[in-house]
Amino acid sequence: MDAGSHDDAAVFKLSDDRALVATTDFFTPIVDDARDWGAIAAANALSDIYAMGATPLFALNLVAWPRTSLPFELLGEVMDGAAEVAREAGCLLVGGHSVDDAEPKFGLAVIGEVHPGRLLTNATAKAGDVLVLTKPLGTGILTTALKRDRVDEATIAPAVRTMRVLNAGAARAALAHGVRAATDVTGFGLLGHLGNILTSSGLAAEIHTDALPVLDGALGLAEEGIIPGGTARNLEAANETTDWDPSVSQAQRLSSNDALPSAHLLLAVAPDRLDALLASLRAEHTPAQAVIGRLLAGQPGTIHVDR
Amino acid sequence: MDAGSHDDAAVFKLSDDRALVATTDFFTPIVDDARDWGAIAAANALSDIYAMGATPLFALNLVAWPRTSLPFELLGEVMDGAAEVAREAGCLLVGGHSVDDAEPKFGLAVIGEVHPGRLLTNATAKAGDVLVLTKPLGTGILTTALKRDRVDEATIAPAVRTMRVLNAGAARAALAHGVRAATDVTGFGLLGHLGNILTSSGLAAEIHTDALPVLDGALGLAEEGIIPGGTARNLEAANETTDWDPSVSQAQRLSSNDALPSAHLLLAVAPDRLDALLASLRAEHTPAQAVIGRLLAGQPGTIHVDR
Repeated sequence: MDAGSHDDAAVFKLSDDRALVATTDFFTPIVDDARDWGAIAAANALSDIYAMGATPLFALNLVAWPRTSLPFELLGEVMDGAAEVAREAGCLLVGGHSVDDAEPKFGLAVIGEVHPGRLLTNATAKAGDVLVLTKPLGTGILTTALKRDRVDEATIAPAVRTMRVLNAGAARAALAHGVRAATDVTGFGLLGHLGNILTSSGLAAEIHTDALPVLDGALGLAEEGIIPGGTARNLEAANETTDWDPSVSQAQRLSSNDALPSAHLLLAVAPDRLDALLASLRAEHTPAQAVIGRLLAGQPGTIHVDR
Repeated sequence: MDAGSHDDAAVFKLSDDRALVATTDFFTPIVDDARDWGAIAAANALSDIYAMGATPLFALNLVAWPRTSLPFELLGEVMDGAAEVAREAGCLLVGGHSVDDAEPKFGLAVIGEVHPGRLLTNATAKAGDVLVLTKPLGTGILTTALKRDRVDEATIAPAVRTMRVLNAGAARAALAHGVRAATDVTGFGLLGHLGNILTSSGLAAEIHTDALPVLDGALGLAEEGIIPGGTARNLEAANETTDWDPSVSQAQRLSSNDALPSAHLLLAVAPDRLDALLASLRAEHTPAQAVIGRLLAGQPGTIHVDR
């Protein structure tokens, strides 16, 4: 269990052509602006639905708030930010639950729908599939630097923009081009969540760090040791299954294991569908459309990383 | 917003004969035994579904846990207690979300289903309807006394048993006998939640405190001032709309406003259906089958309370 950990969304089959997908996600503030925090938390919770190939229907607020020390107006801004993103997703946001708490937390429970035959999972990838990442890494490092007053709000603006982008467009492109497996990338980092695809699909992988999109400034901060606690733990865990080329720097190793506060989508696609997928991702304006490696036959769960 | 507050469950219509009902509920430990806590939290979250006349389909765990100071084995017991109650409810319990937190919290997000025409609401009561309470009051007072070491675990065993009883049986009886309105009674106390029925239905009410089922020991503790903070705030709020007969004691006023940690069901039924409803509630072994007052034409939201 980890501050950034979460299980996959739960799936419940209503009938042969109708399944429900539900997820819950909440966390402490990761940026200073209340409205941005609400928006990012909402985009992150909704992402679990998109990662399954589902469409969000409705959502409930999950709130923990120190009512004696933080004004309710601020909570109103958090909820406004979330409502804005939910509207963008075509998802009703209604009701929810709140508790008094020393430390504020916010998130959503989201209920979505999917045709059981169109469910995206992480168990159906094939050797040879190409790996595509739809957002740049480094949001964990940059938001940690903000918390430690090492960067200002302006420096992390691109990270905030990336985090509040809905993964709806990436999921639409994935479904349109027969993506074979998809996973959310969050608290366990790129290699950790890739590992889920690998063990579920019985495959190995290779990743090229020079192809990884990383937000400006994140590698420099990682070099200075400004990283989330989860990122260090993720790298330690990844070392057990990863064969690192000596040319891969420590900063690259950390950023490829960065504990992301908000979900990215990682897609595995057949090579002959790659170009069409990339074109669709560009048309959807996903923050990145990066080809970062591929899946291989080999010892399940193992990853070779070079530059 | 209050530690015990919560909105009604959210309703989403899928089709003319199918609606989803979803709710989220979580709170800090209210008893010492981890398994009991999990069971009570689950019964409470599921109650929101029953209060709407719906059937639970599946649920997700909501967990906040101090991973450095509390063993995970204890969290396992909490989740086992919840799983036991979910099984009893015929509700799948799958996945969820956990965060690291100074203070442990546990609850569920529950998704249920109902025919839109069978939805129970609090807006459809009529003057003359009789009010029936299906569990005894005082669980807020007794669990507060436990926290303050004023009673031991054995003394509150009846409160624990009451809290972990599913409201499924009460809801079945309500649906079978045409109950016209129902509401969960939780953090805002009996009079507070009754107030929701009254304002939604445009009615007044009379309540007889001598008819209120109250757990052993709760009135004595209330007399000594051993009450939850929420109970005092509830009484203050209730005083604005309540006409108290002078013969009603302070302990009775407090217990009828006790901030309940776990949900009771309050039902409004037509007088000619009352006997059949009570017989069904007895057959379902609800912890109480108490006729506590009735609804009246009058200034909406006002309550007359005598002995």
